[in-house]
Amino acid sequence: MGAAKSSCQGFLHYAFDYETPKTLVVPSIAAGVVFRFTQLLILLYLVGYVCIVQKAYQDTDSVVSTVTTKVKGYAVIKGSANTSSPQFRDVADYVIPPQGDKSFFVVTNMIVTTNQKVSHCPEIPKPSTLCNQDSQCTTGLEDLRGNGVRTGRCVNYSDTVQTCQVLSWCPLEEDTGPNKEALIDAAENFTLLIKNSVTYPKFNFHRRNIMPHINSSYLKTCVFNSSTDPHCPIFRLKQIVSDAGEEFQVMAVEGGVLGILIDWTCDLDLWASQCLPKYSFRRLDDNNKSHVLAPGYNFRFAKYYKSPEGTESRTLIKAYGIRFEVIVFGTAGKFSMLPTLVNLGSTLTFLSLVPTVSDWFLLTFTKKRGVYSKHKTTHLRDEDEEDEDENKQSVKEKCFYCSLDWFVI
Amino acid sequence: MGAAKSSCQGFLHYAFDYETPKTLVVPSIAAGVVFRFTQLLILLYLVGYVCIVQKAYQDTDSVVSTVTTKVKGYAVIKGSANTSSPQFRDVADYVIPPQGDKSFFVVTNMIVTTNQKVSHCPEIPKPSTLCNQDSQCTTGLEDLRGNGVRTGRCVNYSDTVQTCQVLSWCPLEEDTGPNKEALIDAAENFTLLIKNSVTYPKFNFHRRNIMPHINSSYLKTCVFNSSTDPHCPIFRLKQIVSDAGEEFQVMAVEGGVLGILIDWTCDLDLWASQCLPKYSFRRLDDNNKSHVLAPGYNFRFAKYYKSPEGTESRTLIKAYGIRFEVIVFGTAGKFSMLPTLVNLGSTLTFLSLVPTVSDWFLLTFTKKRGVYSKHKTTHLRDEDEEDEDENKQSVKEKCFYCSLDWFVI
Amino acid sequence: MGAAKSSCQGFLHYAFDYETPKTLVVPSIAAGVVFRFTQLLILLYLVGYVCIVQKAYQDTDSVVSTVTTKVKGYAVIKGSANTSSPQFRDVADYVIPPQGDKSFFVVTNMIVTTNQKVSHCPEIPKPSTLCNQDSQCTTGLEDLRGNGVRTGRCVNYSDTVQTCQVLSWCPLEEDTGPNKEALIDAAENFTLLIKNSVTYPKFNFHRRNIMPHINSSYLKTCVFNSSTDPHCPIFRLKQIVSDAGEEFQVMAVEGGVLGILIDWTCDLDLWASQCLPKYSFRRLDDNNKSHVLAPGYNFRFAKYYKSPEGTESRTLIKAYGIRFEVIVFGTAGKFSMLPTLVNLGSTLTFLSLVPTVSDWFLLTFTKKRGVYSKHKTTHLRDEDEEDEDENKQSVKEKCFYCSLDWFVI
Repeated sequence: MGAAKSSCQGFLHYAFDYETPKTLVVPSIAAGVVFRFTQLLILLYLVGYVCIVQKAYQDTDSVVSTVTTKVKGYAVIKGSANTSSPQFRDVADYVIPPQGDKSFFVVTNMIVTTNQKVSHCPEIPKPSTLCNQDSQCTTGLEDLRGNGVRTGRCVNYSDTVQTCQVLSWCPLEEDTGPNKEALIDAAENFTLLIKNSVTYPKFNFHRRNIMPHINSSYLKTCVFNSSTDPHCPIFRLKQIVSDAGEEFQVMAVEGGVLGILIDWTCDLDLWASQCLPKYSFRRLDDNNKSHVLAPGYNFRFAKYYKSPEGTESRTLIKAYGIRFEVIVFGTAGKFSMLPTLVNLGSTLTFLSLVPTVSDWFLLTFTKKRGVYSKHKTTHLRDEDEEDEDENKQSVKEKCFYCSLDWFVI
Repeated sequence: MGAAKSSCQGFLHYAFDYETPKTLVVPSIAAGVVFRFTQLLILLYLVGYVCIVQKAYQDTDSVVSTVTTKVKGYAVIKGSANTSSPQFRDVADYVIPPQGDKSFFVVTNMIVTTNQKVSHCPEIPKPSTLCNQDSQCTTGLEDLRGNGVRTGRCVNYSDTVQTCQVLSWCPLEEDTGPNKEALIDAAENFTLLIKNSVTYPKFNFHRRNIMPHINSSYLKTCVFNSSTDPHCPIFRLKQIVSDAGEEFQVMAVEGGVLGILIDWTCDLDLWASQCLPKYSFRRLDDNNKSHVLAPGYNFRFAKYYKSPEGTESRTLIKAYGIRFEVIVFGTAGKFSMLPTLVNLGSTLTFLSLVPTVSDWFLLTFTKKRGVYSKHKTTHLRDEDEEDEDENKQSVKEKCFYCSLDWFVI
Repeated sequence: MGAAKSSCQGFLHYAFDYETPKTLVVPSIAAGVVFRFTQLLILLYLVGYVCIVQKAYQDTDSVVSTVTTKVKGYAVIKGSANTSSPQFRDVADYVIPPQGDKSFFVVTNMIVTTNQKVSHCPEIPKPSTLCNQDSQCTTGLEDLRGNGVRTGRCVNYSDTVQTCQVLSWCPLEEDTGPNKEALIDAAENFTLLIKNSVTYPKFNFHRRNIMPHINSSYLKTCVFNSSTDPHCPIFRLKQIVSDAGEEFQVMAVEGGVLGILIDWTCDLDLWASQCLPKYSFRRLDDNNKSHVLAPGYNFRFAKYYKSPEGTESRTLIKAYGIRFEVIVFGTAGKFSMLPTLVNLGSTLTFLSLVPTVSDWFLLTFTKKRGVYSKHKTTHLRDEDEEDEDENKQSVKEKCFYCSLDWFVI
């Protein structure tokens, strides 16, 4: 045998000799049962919890969505129907903004102040605006809780009350709170069409809430009902509010924010065709009156007019109403190699702990633990080594671990 | 040796004696090859799939973004150019809302009903509104598919047709569908500037779609083109629509929703400077006519006027057009300890399964499996144990597993 | 012993015999220390990094949120206070859109062009619009950088300058850039109320930024200050801008985009009551003048008027101002079985690597490595096998690995 051949052989032995642990087979039914039972538990966890409950073999993606909305309906303002100037509102009047966004506001109540012009007028009476003489009204004071810049004059608000004069849009809005009954109470019968298209970009999956298999004549007449018509995209506002646990006519007085939640959580592995939207409704603002700053929901906007002479006037509307927000959420899962292997790997780690548990059981609780231990474990005693290193530290061995020579290798 | 020393030694033996499995080295080239090959496969999976394909060593974050848009262009309404009252529209007229949001609507077609006042007028003729006498028109009926509240009178709609009279904004809109050719066809030449700033909060990474290294004189004249000018933030509407696979003049008639998708998927480890936006375009609404409820995209809005006498009138506009939605998405990845270790750990688990596979191969398929098995595995027979427990159940041993005494430890 | 009984026994042996590795206990203090120390390191990593720093035992969810905003304040336009026609603006005039969205714009500066009518007027002078004779003005040319469609006539813009006549909203806006000082400088004192309600759907956790335990009289008077009043939901615009590192009066001239970031990152395991919003502020648009296309933030909108004769006119407003964007983000973590087990499993894998490291140390660096190796590893030599297969290939053994017979099993 030449040297080259020998070194070749050495390398090959190094690379391809197979080293395998020696094992002992113990006919202990108890240890065997513990071993198999623990394995079974972990497999059950893997199959039951990791695979079935958590679907950990799936990669997930979040929904990307587009929503367009369209409200229909009209209303005569309460109490105006039989007057000489009935007030009529349709969708162009009460939906703000008009362009069919996923968040829109339906006016249900309002305080209208017509024909405001920038001029001088007395402040609304309240402790800080009452006055008897001009000196109580500081010129130019901009009280952020007031309505305008003081001119420095104290003028008659009524026959008995004098307040500081301000530069503002006059006459000032007399905000005594919303009407106790909503002016546009017919809003509860308005209908809302929601068109929602979703995408899971990672899986290149597209879907719409108006399913192609749904009959179009059905779509033209249906109204959403969570039990009988759960896939109809047309909603009655009253139904939405009541499904959220609120009463429309109560909510309409001061306004509020109402979430229309569309849940697109889907399993795209087997049941992609079952990937359907689930609608739910929840009031999003705080209606606990005692804790609330500025309860309800309202805002002010104006319509501007110009007289033939060119002076600008406006109609100020403090609009109370319900803001509807369509909130689309959801996560889709689909089989993917990486999470499967990561989760499988993690679970298999626990399988590799089973022998540790079983060994501990075998060597601690079985009757014949002495026999098993003797065959399983070989104790390499210091004396054994001495056979080969006979001339070495015989003292040290007496207290192998009790001297400072410990860390001598 | 004192007792203390002895117990000290006992503890130290317990804590620091090192227990290591006994192994058997088998010169089986086949088992060695199986062992190394399986190891190699797993390492390839680790390096190739986990590291390179999935970048599992990275922590990820989702993009937070702000978008502002600005449309430019003007148009003369089709057919009005040579009339005595040409109609001209600029950005303040046709972009709704005007404030440069990430979602905006460009009017391309419309039905205008001028000089509407709240008053009484005959309904638009259709089966449910036709009448011969007042009794067919129920007073106060609010038909949600009608246009107003019935007054109870049956009046002439034309010389030959009578319909129920309603209280509404009169004259009613005559909605015979959009013009067959878009009125603002010049909208295809409008340009759109998109300013988009993104943040990956977890990595404190900020970026804008207008890159600082881009020449500002280039920016003033460029127009986006996916192949020649992929980083120009100025888009021509026609190009956007055609990149989405649609034709502008067709889409302009009934309207639609068009997504401008900006993908900021980035690898922040090595190529942060290569973190550039990728633009793509997709029609988001369903243009499959047969399945669609309310195809296209339109909404109604009004401009309000007041006569010198104070009566309010409005111009109702049913606007058809294209809603553009800038959708920013993306995930950034950056090296992080935790996912690296989790994924590494999971993969190493598979490495720890290699010996199991190799053992099975060694003891099943190799020629000398008998020899290997004999050396690898020691069977502790019941008889072996008997040597030490000679006086015990000799009958039981005959069928160790077949009696109910099984679970006696 | 019958055959049935025997096969039964065989199966039971197969299923329940417990196979356990044989081990060798080595009293090597060095190997023991390496073993325990490596174990300790991994446990420290598990406890310290995985559990405490990364909270890898938690499942996470992203925040779903709703925001409503309300601005308060009024202003007299700079320089108009002492004129005959003071200009006064309140919230209905300067907040766009008015409905209290999470993104809103406050006008701080503007260029107003009143009484525009669709008609013919000379272009704004610039190189491409100057002319001496009609032939220089192509009829019907729609220059996207111009303001209207050319009529083909060259007319006097002033006594000395002639430009092409266009069909447009006339008079044209003379955009010489924003006023050097913001016209609505008082906007810095406006206050902003933010109502934000958040949900972590996975954990069914709801919270509002106006906490129920906060005194409502405090809420009525407080103003947000990051150090003294970090939970007051009322913000002064000037404070917001200065917290973002900008100066209000500077930003107000050309406008910009300002992010109000609300961070709801929460640990819901122990400190759910400590789940409070953290506000921060950041300018979102690029204020690096040199790199910017269209710096600042502005847009045009119009108010429409109708004369008694029915001709329409408009007031065009180029509004500069600050767009505020309320951006709500955050991730909540809560203990969950799956990530705990996955991360624990991955870490335990590293524990299972400890013996490999220790073995390598034991057999490489310890003094008595020869002894240990001899006891730990049994080399199954080819000669050993020969005892049993004596009549076989004696040549092959000479160079076991060096022939092509290798893959013979």
